[in-house]
Amino acid sequence: MTALHEDRFFDPDPTTRNYAREIYEGTRDLPIVSPHGHVDAAVLASNEPFPDPASLIVTPDHYILRLLYSRGVPLESLGVGPRDDSSAKVETGPRKIWQTFAEHWHLFRGTPTRAWLEYEIRDVFGVKEELDGTSASKLYDAMVERLQSPEFRPRELLKRFRIEFLATTDGAAESLHNHATLRDAKIDARIVPTFRPDALLAIGASGWDGELKRFATAAETEIRSYGDFLAAIRKRRDEFKRAGAKATDHAVITPHTERMVDADVERIFLRALEGKANRHDQSRFEAHMLMEMAGLSAEDGLVMQLHAGALRNHNESFYKQYGPDRGGDIPVATEFTRNLRQLLNAYGNDARFRLIVFSLDESAYGRELAPIAGHYPAVLLGAPWWFHDSVEGMMRFRRETTETAGIDNTAGFTDDTRAFCSIPARHDLARRVDANYLANLVARHVIDLSEARGMAFLMAYDLAKRAYRLTDQPKTDDRTQTVTT
Amino acid sequence: MTALHEDRFFDPDPTTRNYAREIYEGTRDLPIVSPHGHVDAAVLASNEPFPDPASLIVTPDHYILRLLYSRGVPLESLGVGPRDDSSAKVETGPRKIWQTFAEHWHLFRGTPTRAWLEYEIRDVFGVKEELDGTSASKLYDAMVERLQSPEFRPRELLKRFRIEFLATTDGAAESLHNHATLRDAKIDARIVPTFRPDALLAIGASGWDGELKRFATAAETEIRSYGDFLAAIRKRRDEFKRAGAKATDHAVITPHTERMVDADVERIFLRALEGKANRHDQSRFEAHMLMEMAGLSAEDGLVMQLHAGALRNHNESFYKQYGPDRGGDIPVATEFTRNLRQLLNAYGNDARFRLIVFSLDESAYGRELAPIAGHYPAVLLGAPWWFHDSVEGMMRFRRETTETAGIDNTAGFTDDTRAFCSIPARHDLARRVDANYLANLVARHVIDLSEARGMAFLMAYDLAKRAYRLTDQPKTDDRTQTVTT
Amino acid sequence: MTALHEDRFFDPDPTTRNYAREIYEGTRDLPIVSPHGHVDAAVLASNEPFPDPASLIVTPDHYILRLLYSRGVPLESLGVGPRDDSSAKVETGPRKIWQTFAEHWHLFRGTPTRAWLEYEIRDVFGVKEELDGTSASKLYDAMVERLQSPEFRPRELLKRFRIEFLATTDGAAESLHNHATLRDAKIDARIVPTFRPDALLAIGASGWDGELKRFATAAETEIRSYGDFLAAIRKRRDEFKRAGAKATDHAVITPHTERMVDADVERIFLRALEGKANRHDQSRFEAHMLMEMAGLSAEDGLVMQLHAGALRNHNESFYKQYGPDRGGDIPVATEFTRNLRQLLNAYGNDARFRLIVFSLDESAYGRELAPIAGHYPAVLLGAPWWFHDSVEGMMRFRRETTETAGIDNTAGFTDDTRAFCSIPARHDLARRVDANYLANLVARHVIDLSEARGMAFLMAYDLAKRAYRLTDQPKTDDRTQTVTT
Repeated sequence: MTALHEDRFFDPDPTTRNYAREIYEGTRDLPIVSPHGHVDAAVLASNEPFPDPASLIVTPDHYILRLLYSRGVPLESLGVGPRDDSSAKVETGPRKIWQTFAEHWHLFRGTPTRAWLEYEIRDVFGVKEELDGTSASKLYDAMVERLQSPEFRPRELLKRFRIEFLATTDGAAESLHNHATLRDAKIDARIVPTFRPDALLAIGASGWDGELKRFATAAETEIRSYGDFLAAIRKRRDEFKRAGAKATDHAVITPHTERMVDADVERIFLRALEGKANRHDQSRFEAHMLMEMAGLSAEDGLVMQLHAGALRNHNESFYKQYGPDRGGDIPVATEFTRNLRQLLNAYGNDARFRLIVFSLDESAYGRELAPIAGHYPAVLLGAPWWFHDSVEGMMRFRRETTETAGIDNTAGFTDDTRAFCSIPARHDLARRVDANYLANLVARHVIDLSEARGMAFLMAYDLAKRAYRLTDQPKTDDRTQTVTT
Repeated sequence: MTALHEDRFFDPDPTTRNYAREIYEGTRDLPIVSPHGHVDAAVLASNEPFPDPASLIVTPDHYILRLLYSRGVPLESLGVGPRDDSSAKVETGPRKIWQTFAEHWHLFRGTPTRAWLEYEIRDVFGVKEELDGTSASKLYDAMVERLQSPEFRPRELLKRFRIEFLATTDGAAESLHNHATLRDAKIDARIVPTFRPDALLAIGASGWDGELKRFATAAETEIRSYGDFLAAIRKRRDEFKRAGAKATDHAVITPHTERMVDADVERIFLRALEGKANRHDQSRFEAHMLMEMAGLSAEDGLVMQLHAGALRNHNESFYKQYGPDRGGDIPVATEFTRNLRQLLNAYGNDARFRLIVFSLDESAYGRELAPIAGHYPAVLLGAPWWFHDSVEGMMRFRRETTETAGIDNTAGFTDDTRAFCSIPARHDLARRVDANYLANLVARHVIDLSEARGMAFLMAYDLAKRAYRLTDQPKTDDRTQTVTT
Repeated sequence: MTALHEDRFFDPDPTTRNYAREIYEGTRDLPIVSPHGHVDAAVLASNEPFPDPASLIVTPDHYILRLLYSRGVPLESLGVGPRDDSSAKVETGPRKIWQTFAEHWHLFRGTPTRAWLEYEIRDVFGVKEELDGTSASKLYDAMVERLQSPEFRPRELLKRFRIEFLATTDGAAESLHNHATLRDAKIDARIVPTFRPDALLAIGASGWDGELKRFATAAETEIRSYGDFLAAIRKRRDEFKRAGAKATDHAVITPHTERMVDADVERIFLRALEGKANRHDQSRFEAHMLMEMAGLSAEDGLVMQLHAGALRNHNESFYKQYGPDRGGDIPVATEFTRNLRQLLNAYGNDARFRLIVFSLDESAYGRELAPIAGHYPAVLLGAPWWFHDSVEGMMRFRRETTETAGIDNTAGFTDDTRAFCSIPARHDLARRVDANYLANLVARHVIDLSEARGMAFLMAYDLAKRAYRLTDQPKTDDRTQTVTT
């Protein structure tokens, strides 16, 4: 493992590097605002120690599973077994799993996983050893020792990481009891849920009836019509909001938006209740529900997040064996201009509404998304997502969007991670890359250094607070002026 | 406002920067050739002083309106009111509008608008003050003073800007009287019209009948059949040509080209005359008319410009209130290979024909457009357009197209602006970015410095003259040799 | 012609350049592995001297023909005449053709053709003169002299170029007698064929019946059913394999994959035998045959190469006159995620199967291809292809794919050329660009120098050997572990 160099990710040109250092100095120690991610609230609610390096770092990380699987490493050797084959030999020893991972560590050269883990091992765990097959066991022991110490309890790390705000992502039927525990625990950081009703809208999927039942139970109601359904959604949004939620989240393959007439949506919903909805019904229903959700957001002020373009579980036999989120999702080309038009025409000029869009299709950054965010008052650009949450990905995002949308129409960094201990690594990487991006603008005399410092502060901290409405003091350029519609 | 640094937009690497300076020295003072833009000929014909900074710079610029609107600034506060609401409170005081603009100036950090305006204020107006809310009024006064002086009359600026050739863009029914005035005025620059018949081809649009009437009047004919229509187009093309026009211009969402059989086109045209043409008719008609226009270009030698990929007036309520060209147009993904095939098969090998293609979809640069221009003798690549007319956009254009098409298959820089005073700023930016692009090639030993100087001259000046057939002396590599078809 | 600078293609930043030099030192003299290209086996089998610079360099190179044609140079003046017009005046004098080429040499500034030819003239031929209209004849004479010397016989150049492995590309009916000659000749390099059955699958094309007959003859069988057809394909694959083939190659516009039910494929095949298959039949058949070919690859171990996205012979009249491979092919946007899904679901997890994908649509690199290769054990990314086989194209490829797929999921460099004498130029360029890419990662502290050296070795040499299964010693990370499916 390369030493964590103080200048990592900065351009080698001395002028740029000097500016990058100065700019980064102003953001490196800022608190972390994490408005979208997948940390399990139970981890913080229980505050139990993390078990071991393998189950903390390797087994749950689809970035790692994905790349190792692509190079012929069986998931079983990483502790992930087939769901329906109890006779499969699945490695259960964490030290052995860690060893297998370490022996393939070279595969991650040049990837963000490598950058994040180097930070995590070195900075979070304070372990200086280089990771490889030989040193794996020694690192394992050192990390286990740390994990058993009180300073590595989740809530202690929360403080050490300077996390000010952390949003989890939760199904529509989520009980929110862990969030209640966390509120009662009076910890410094605000930990809040996010309302993500995707499974509830998949009316053509096999498990939908169960999903609906759990949702009805959570909403303490019966759902016999679309009207009941919508009322329950309102109720649950309100509960999420009272639990601190600032946003909803919606994942779609195609971001098509189109309101159905009442009779149609009622009829399709009844068909779904009878278990007869098909794929086409589901598509229409999802396009319709994005319109409803936007309307509800305009009403209740929850920020609407849209993650478009992932074809989930592309590898079907792999999915059947190992389940979702193991690295088998593949992006598709994504059209936003025509697909979002109806939604934007209905709510895009509404100052109460806010939509944050995330794309896996970089070709849409400059062509569609920056022009949309650079016109519609309601739209902000989400951070480069998933495969593009990387050094090169972030540079491309800034270079493709800033000239058209400015940085004020972006929503700040979102780490989007389920790996709690990688949070500071991810924010640090983003702060460094943004500092370097700005340093390059200063070096080319596009902006001056004091502007760059101000922009870096926004990008590292304040844009996220604005975007997710975490601040109480509205600012001039936080769209507080009324937009005439 | 950052001082206008002598090295702005150049890479900070000293080797590259030194080459960039040398290369730029050779182009910075070249005359300006502006073969495509939206300056109003009346401004130059009347030669009245420009009124004030707000109506010169803020109110008419859709780049500015767009970004301010996206951040919640009402267009009314910028002097733009709803078309059908006379009771709306619209700011009419230019000083107040300028003040509002200045208070949001920081939103433009990192955008080309900022770069252009810095040049304009500092270099064209000679005002050194930084623009912000505090200084706004002082700058306003200084600029008003300049505007009232004789040296700021449009034709004086024309000289000072060293504009050698300027093409306006004009509807098919345009009387061309301003251009007649300008010819009689015997000014040094050649100011010519461009024939842009888009509105005339929109047979399914609500105002088409009026458009057709105005066109028939301008052509001094009656139009009762497609034959009449085509004859009138020929006549008007000829009038434009006699008024100095070098080109036509065609804006389409999808660049589909397909000739209809005579009976079909006649039938559709008659349906249009009866006010019964629908969207589908219009699409077929437009695809057909691109074929006709290419054929006419091959005959009369007017260069055909094609601007593809803008979905105009995406925000419908905004459009209804504020009208077109206020910043509510959004690009779409654009296919050229299959769509242009019929046109290129018919005319692409014809030495008399020339097609200059502009795209808002950068993904087509390397994939479709550079291969097309690098094969078909008739095709040249237009400069990076609109959202991509920027420092990063120009670098991407060169890096994506030069290796496949060479620079000789590009058409030079087009400022495409309605903001007359920004013309030198835009050409200067392009010359700097191209110099930097070439400097980087020299620094990497891809070309040598003397080649770079020659290429910079082409890019800044001569390619536009060649592309739009402004020179009388044909050159070897200006496709003067006969192409065998 | 710029002198061949020792640091060409390296970033000018001194830190990066120093690393690039060091990294490149380790790969510059490595043997050449060329697993995909279009060199004619007859050239090496006969070992006759190359005739002259024009027929060696100009007339057969579609990159050159393409760009000269685009600038108005008639193909006839380059020795290429219309196929069906024996009265056409076609230049036959090689000195004259070379002269015409030299006079337009400036058109190639900034293109890879220029970089390759500079290397070829200077390094392979040892001619130092700058190429232009004045020097053309002198260069011609010097090159002719070299070509007549024994050291310029093809097999001597094979040694001098340090070519270790060279795969040609051959139709399904190819007799392979040249390859037999080469095996008997016991030369050091391994020269092997590649099975490319595209023409055989084009059941809707006019010449298909002749193609099928030649194929049946080559397979020494009669083909009266789809079963016969498949059996003959198996037989020929086996013959290719025994002749040393390591791979098959498949060129498609759209990489759609979909297995037909037996009855359908049998019926379509019989329709084809009757000469009645249409375009739609052909599309379905091709999608089906990709599935069959993948299945056969899983069985016989031939690596499957897929080249997607070229719309061949876009310029129809040009094609009719001058034939294929003259520079008239244009790429189209290409979808992989959905199109390859059925094939990847069937064979993507199969350790016996290997698919190497080449794309002309760069927007798919990061969006679809890197995620696919970074998940499916069977998939590797082919080198940047054709229009993207260039300095900028290679940098984009690495920057778009490494962070998601790592370098271990790429297949090494393929020169893909029919220009034998350009092979070392192309590999040298790729090694330089990869060295520079890695140097930049070192300079930004993403990897360290020793890692970069190891990665450079893989990229220049070993990845190709692994990808095409040329080595006998399997390695840990060459997917030798069993993948559970």
